[in-house]
Amino acid sequence: MHQTFNAAIELNLLHVNQKGADHNRQYFDNWGITCLNIMSSPGAGKTVLLEQTLKALKAKLNIAVIEGDMTTELDADRLRKYNVPVIPINTGRSCHLDSKMVAGGIHILEHQYQPQNLDLVLVENVGNLVCPAEFEVGEHKKVALLSVTEGEDKPLKYPVMFREADCLLITKTDLAPYLDIDLDRITFNIKQINPQVTIIPLSAKTGEGLEAWLEWVQSVICIHSARNTKYKEQGK
Amino acid sequence: MHQTFNAAIELNLLHVNQKGADHNRQYFDNWGITCLNIMSSPGAGKTVLLEQTLKALKAKLNIAVIEGDMTTELDADRLRKYNVPVIPINTGRSCHLDSKMVAGGIHILEHQYQPQNLDLVLVENVGNLVCPAEFEVGEHKKVALLSVTEGEDKPLKYPVMFREADCLLITKTDLAPYLDIDLDRITFNIKQINPQVTIIPLSAKTGEGLEAWLEWVQSVICIHSARNTKYKEQGK
Repeated sequence: MHQTFNAAIELNLLHVNQKGADHNRQYFDNWGITCLNIMSSPGAGKTVLLEQTLKALKAKLNIAVIEGDMTTELDADRLRKYNVPVIPINTGRSCHLDSKMVAGGIHILEHQYQPQNLDLVLVENVGNLVCPAEFEVGEHKKVALLSVTEGEDKPLKYPVMFREADCLLITKTDLAPYLDIDLDRITFNIKQINPQVTIIPLSAKTGEGLEAWLEWVQSVICIHSARNTKYKEQGK
Repeated sequence: MHQTFNAAIELNLLHVNQKGADHNRQYFDNWGITCLNIMSSPGAGKTVLLEQTLKALKAKLNIAVIEGDMTTELDADRLRKYNVPVIPINTGRSCHLDSKMVAGGIHILEHQYQPQNLDLVLVENVGNLVCPAEFEVGEHKKVALLSVTEGEDKPLKYPVMFREADCLLITKTDLAPYLDIDLDRITFNIKQINPQVTIIPLSAKTGEGLEAWLEWVQSVICIHSARNTKYKEQGK
């Protein structure tokens, strides 16, 4: 968030974005879709996580990806190999996705795919440990990744992201032996900021944590679908 | 940058910031100070770089640090051990330093230290590979760090930072053997975005590149001081 703006403009900006996010979430709910917003610093492993998630779950679940990047379709191209709908959004100079951009992705889902057949939409945000956490896009849960190479102090120094996350993946754990780092200290620091968050240490290389992550995703879908069905049955 | 704002507000914001940056630079020039703006993703090694720079150069040069962090003084505390002026700026929810915040640091330099005795001010920006590159703070040169753990594609995906940098440090090269990464590919991608940039591979662990970095810093100070003196002598 750019502090140079005055409080009124900032409040208005976040208010407009929040209304858009609620609107997007309503679309996802109507279609029976669970949406996850995946956020982290650049290079913490979001795209690898998505690749592994698609590989493991695409036979069981119908998944689409909304892929946010400032420029290029490098990540979108990596994910298209899994034969799922991948909708790239280039944010230009914007340092995060906002609800308006994701609404554009929802529009494409609506008109080029059958969104009512989808179970899960994974939104990969722009690599940035600060701003994406402040701009909801219509997700049901927020997932944050922190690579062990980023250091133990990051939850304390960038608290907004860690406070907002529902699931926190500590990635690249295979590199821990080569770093002067204490995994317990990372967990302790995260819990100081957000005692409720689910923490999963993960290594794309060794496969550590992948099962736990896939279970978490599926449990979120299960709970959301049950709630959504009940909500619809009650005609609310 | 938050794309949600309209173009007029954005232009005004950058214009106001730029005026402030020019104002700050004038102060640095009047005091004969060279200012470097150090930027990167969280955890790429900015603070370690500053520690090693202070350790190596503080006997030769008078150095101060303006230390930007969203919250905490963890990094400032690490740097205070080197007995140089360290001015912490907590940016709150802001994802970068701007020229107004750094003007606050300059004010403290002016009133609590003897800035005319300083040679170098190192500004450590908030960890963010996107926004800091758009907000000049009054620096003479921009330094960006990219950790090898962040991946080869980052210069292409986050071009603004790489386009703006005068010096690009590829950090944590000691971890390269444990990663599926090609250092030449990183360099190639950086050069595609910015053919003129000075690239220095660096490892805080092995010491690789440290001499080259220190030489670069000193050459920047030397050139800037010579220009500054000439400029003053001409009474401009």
